[in-house]
Amino acid sequence: NRKGVALLAVVATLKLATMAAAGGKPAVLLLRPVDAPFAAALRDRFRVLDLYAPGQALPALAFVAAAAAVPEPPRATVIWGGVRVDASFLDAAPSLRCVVSTAAGLDHIDLAECARRGVAVANSGEVYSTDVADYAVGLLLDVLRRVSASERYVRRGSWAAQGDYPLGSKLGGKRVGIIGLGNIGSRIAKRLEAFGCIIHYNSRKPKDSVSYKYFPNVHELAAESDVLVVACALNKATRHIVNKDVLEALGKDGVVVNIGRGANIDEAELVIALREGKIAGAGLDVFEHEPKVPAELFSMENVVLSRHVAVLTEESRSDLRAHTIGNLEAFFSGQPLLTPVHADSLAQ
Amino acid sequence: NRKGVALLAVVATLKLATMAAAGGKPAVLLLRPVDAPFAAALRDRFRVLDLYAPGQALPALAFVAAAAAVPEPPRATVIWGGVRVDASFLDAAPSLRCVVSTAAGLDHIDLAECARRGVAVANSGEVYSTDVADYAVGLLLDVLRRVSASERYVRRGSWAAQGDYPLGSKLGGKRVGIIGLGNIGSRIAKRLEAFGCIIHYNSRKPKDSVSYKYFPNVHELAAESDVLVVACALNKATRHIVNKDVLEALGKDGVVVNIGRGANIDEAELVIALREGKIAGAGLDVFEHEPKVPAELFSMENVVLSRHVAVLTEESRSDLRAHTIGNLEAFFSGQPLLTPVHADSLAQ
Repeated sequence: NRKGVALLAVVATLKLATMAAAGGKPAVLLLRPVDAPFAAALRDRFRVLDLYAPGQALPALAFVAAAAAVPEPPRATVIWGGVRVDASFLDAAPSLRCVVSTAAGLDHIDLAECARRGVAVANSGEVYSTDVADYAVGLLLDVLRRVSASERYVRRGSWAAQGDYPLGSKLGGKRVGIIGLGNIGSRIAKRLEAFGCIIHYNSRKPKDSVSYKYFPNVHELAAESDVLVVACALNKATRHIVNKDVLEALGKDGVVVNIGRGANIDEAELVIALREGKIAGAGLDVFEHEPKVPAELFSMENVVLSRHVAVLTEESRSDLRAHTIGNLEAFFSGQPLLTPVHADSLAQ
Repeated sequence: NRKGVALLAVVATLKLATMAAAGGKPAVLLLRPVDAPFAAALRDRFRVLDLYAPGQALPALAFVAAAAAVPEPPRATVIWGGVRVDASFLDAAPSLRCVVSTAAGLDHIDLAECARRGVAVANSGEVYSTDVADYAVGLLLDVLRRVSASERYVRRGSWAAQGDYPLGSKLGGKRVGIIGLGNIGSRIAKRLEAFGCIIHYNSRKPKDSVSYKYFPNVHELAAESDVLVVACALNKATRHIVNKDVLEALGKDGVVVNIGRGANIDEAELVIALREGKIAGAGLDVFEHEPKVPAELFSMENVVLSRHVAVLTEESRSDLRAHTIGNLEAFFSGQPLLTPVHADSLAQ
């Protein structure tokens, strides 16, 4: 078996070497699936060593090692949230000097380890911010006004036989507590102001640029809010930032929206709180163990579930392509990255 | 059979007379179902002749006639969209001098006939405007970002086995053509501006108070818009205002949202346009023959369906109660109605 893997690695190395020799372009290690326009745009500019190329059968880390062994090995890689960039990864690809992530979050990248090895990191910047903010508002409207639940009701053909149906709740006047007032959180706030919501927020420190009420503590934020929106990065300080106590402080009429990361919420406690009516509802685009969704949620009428699509639109896909190539071109031409990420930039 | 109805009418008249004699309060003819708090609030202030009272078995018009025959017959009635106020209705209840409708629309009331007979009419004013505007944005976000479709996908447990899935479309930058820039339409515009949309509109005449681009013609509005939102009243001029030609002008990437009245759109043509990909999608809270929804829509993934709930929240229900009683008290005390409606006020 180990021999088999070794053999495959050799074969792959030769293939990659052939690919690498195909042009005078700089090599890029591509570790995420891309659509045809993205693939074409990359191949126009770079020698692409593609983990997802047809016929490529090596596991990811073996492929990375094989790619690092070609002549003129790749100095840059394009990754997504599914790739963990840690010491083992960087050991396997010592040629890498630049990691361009297409993810909005950075929780899968060991920034300190990258900094130690002189590996620059870029992320997707604000490419997704607008779409994620829009989606957060969509989820909140859906939970409060029962849009999806109403959809199911009509599609079942139940309208004609309609009995009493639980009323929705008005968005205007709601106190919305936003956890993390960065690119995304501040856009959510701006949108919800237009609906007449009162914005509160929690972040590492208060922002001078806004007049919203700041809460240094998420528990107090929850106690003073009708809605909690999770819009922070995932890191040690924000893992399970919404826990059992916070959910209880939010209370039985409270609603949670999560477009951050699943692990920002203690998911097991969230399911209990929803089941026991300790909170009123939830709109969830992310889950702690994606693509696994707690099965109990499937039968709840007061939750809106989606599959980590808050970032996904045709427009953001196209913007992401341009942005990723911009970061790669900046790196290869010795210019500053468009959206560099530093080890201390894990802002909420 | 006619004898039977006549007998029932006599019995009802006696019952109503007994009810009417029960207090010194003014009589109100209640022709819509109300929840317990609404019923109690009405009974506190008025002698309520209730079509939906337990044991009341007369058909609506016979009940109205019976109510008009009691001593001190009701001079005011509370109705909803399900009651058609026309010459026959007014003939049956000659005592009526005030009609308070809890509906937002006025298409079920013959305003000219009411004016001719000196019957004052009040509607729900702006009680619903905010909730309807919110819901319109919710439907639009849902269609563009596929929130309900994503919901169904996750609830079916399909995420883990996920293949390619059609991308959503960004709300920001979309040209949104609003048909009817009244209380509701202008609130929709304000919300969508916060998402970065470009607002166009059509109404009977341009509004001085806004800087949005005005289109005197819905066909041209559709041709210059990515989204059409129907937010006008239903009347002769706006029946089927969105017809086959308008849908074709909107085009294959276009989306329609209807929170007005079903008959503002030629529903048969809408179904064809959706089926044939002549437009991209639709978010529909209202239908031409409610509660009947064209069955073909049930299997479409690019439509979001709801059951005329854009006005419905706990908050609007409570506001409506206070507003309806306010109109009745104004009428009985000889004050101006809170939200009088005149025959010439059928603004879009």
